Amino acid sequence: MADAPLFDTLTIIGPGLIGSSILRRARQTGPLARRLITADSAPAVLQRARELDLADEVTASLTEAAAKSDAVILCIPTGAIRPVAAAILPHMRPGSILSDVASVRSTLGPDISALLPEDVSYVPAHPMAGTEYSGPDAGFATLFENRWTLLVPPAGTPSEAITTMETFWQRCGARTRQITDQYHDQICAMVSHLPHLLAFTICDTADRLSADLRADVLEYAASGFRDFTRIAASDPTMWRDIFLTNRDVLLATFERFEKDAHLMVEAIRNGDSEAITERIRRGRRIRQGLIENKQA
Amino acid sequence: MADAPLFDTLTIIGPGLIGSSILRRARQTGPLARRLITADSAPAVLQRARELDLADEVTASLTEAAAKSDAVILCIPTGAIRPVAAAILPHMRPGSILSDVASVRSTLGPDISALLPEDVSYVPAHPMAGTEYSGPDAGFATLFENRWTLLVPPAGTPSEAITTMETFWQRCGARTRQITDQYHDQICAMVSHLPHLLAFTICDTADRLSADLRADVLEYAASGFRDFTRIAASDPTMWRDIFLTNRDVLLATFERFEKDAHLMVEAIRNGDSEAITERIRRGRRIRQGLIENKQA
Repeated sequence: MADAPLFDTLTIIGPGLIGSSILRRARQTGPLARRLITADSAPAVLQRARELDLADEVTASLTEAAAKSDAVILCIPTGAIRPVAAAILPHMRPGSILSDVASVRSTLGPDISALLPEDVSYVPAHPMAGTEYSGPDAGFATLFENRWTLLVPPAGTPSEAITTMETFWQRCGARTRQITDQYHDQICAMVSHLPHLLAFTICDTADRLSADLRADVLEYAASGFRDFTRIAASDPTMWRDIFLTNRDVLLATFERFEKDAHLMVEAIRNGDSEAITERIRRGRRIRQGLIENKQA
Repeated sequence: MADAPLFDTLTIIGPGLIGSSILRRARQTGPLARRLITADSAPAVLQRARELDLADEVTASLTEAAAKSDAVILCIPTGAIRPVAAAILPHMRPGSILSDVASVRSTLGPDISALLPEDVSYVPAHPMAGTEYSGPDAGFATLFENRWTLLVPPAGTPSEAITTMETFWQRCGARTRQITDQYHDQICAMVSHLPHLLAFTICDTADRLSADLRADVLEYAASGFRDFTRIAASDPTMWRDIFLTNRDVLLATFERFEKDAHLMVEAIRNGDSEAITERIRRGRRIRQGLIENKQA
């Protein structure tokens, strides 16, 4: 069964981990777009995209790429989305779709809506998939397979455009659901932003130990610490932007966590065996839930 | 090259993740012991050890097993080591070796030394290897391969006994080093105990969210959170004992971490981009160090 391509021309701005995975998927499975363009402002990224043959056209001109496309997906750091959208939107075609894959929504929905020409739709989506690697070499066609992609279109977005992007992500292999910006940011603060904050911090703490102890911590890194360092290997610019953009929700989530950490620390200080075990058991329940949901 | 067995009869008390991995290793590679005994006080564990054919003899009598052996390794929760050692030591043979694999040393060294008959040596060792699984089914023969095992014999232990246990662990595939109890506990607080405390706590925090949000956190668990839940799946009794036994060092390590977390949180609150990025970059340096040490 050969599906017709969903788009005639699709532009991916920012062929990094997510962007290049979309491009690879489109190359391998076909029915996403007839023609692929990728654009970036960094010459080294463009060069690498060419070497990897990620798209039919590789260009430094974001506006020219946008003018030729019926869909443009911004796969760039959260902080860059507003200015890049402002630059390309005036060049976009009537009936085309603008999207982004930002992992924090905050006020992006209303902000970009305010910039939209009348006949361009904005259907952002956050694919809940990733690795600790970044750049054009890091992507792979199965990255989104069986992962959730959360669609977060602003109120009033034409349902036809939403359906198109839902189909797009499903053809990328993802499961899709539509939720509000605010709820999205609450979920992500818990499942992604707080874990990263903790992982960066524990690595920071380790980095500032006395030289001997630091060397031995590196030498004897056991699985707990090793897993944290893997999380902490993620791209600094991307994570700085995430922390700043989801600031209020993240800080509230951290406060809940800190309160729970203090209860655990107090239980340890007081030698309260039962309270410690009860807290550990609750953690295991969550793991059990993940295994039942096949997310583990 | 056929090495002679290191021991005639070796008893593993507690054929769980670590104990059954030693037994499997001994079965597969030969030169650890001519005859293997495993003992446990739980009938279900003994039953499973028999079904898995983990040893030549499977018994509920710890003292009888000890009386027949030239080495006994306690692979049981930290809190059980003192009472079990007190029960079996009077039955142990002259010239034999008692060991354990406790992941916290605290005062175990002097405590067990005080119980030792004159001609029994105590050479505990902590293999820095593990998974989140536990029980007789969880072990595998390559668990210790290329991992560190830290030997922590009390001052005054005969060097011959230390050399024997060093050879034992090397034949299990491990790299070995001898360090003091106190330094061991400092390293482990950082590389293992604190990460587990944080992982248990974040899962606890997630468990107590509103029902809707909790369900969606489970549904959309991204890689950061998922990795934490894997760590948090570890055995509650073992970890309760670890937290209680390494209390002072762990709480001091948590305080350092908490101070660093507050600096990160303040940087986020104040929108201090540079301070956030600098902290993230330090975390990545640690990861880089691990990769260079081939521990990643």
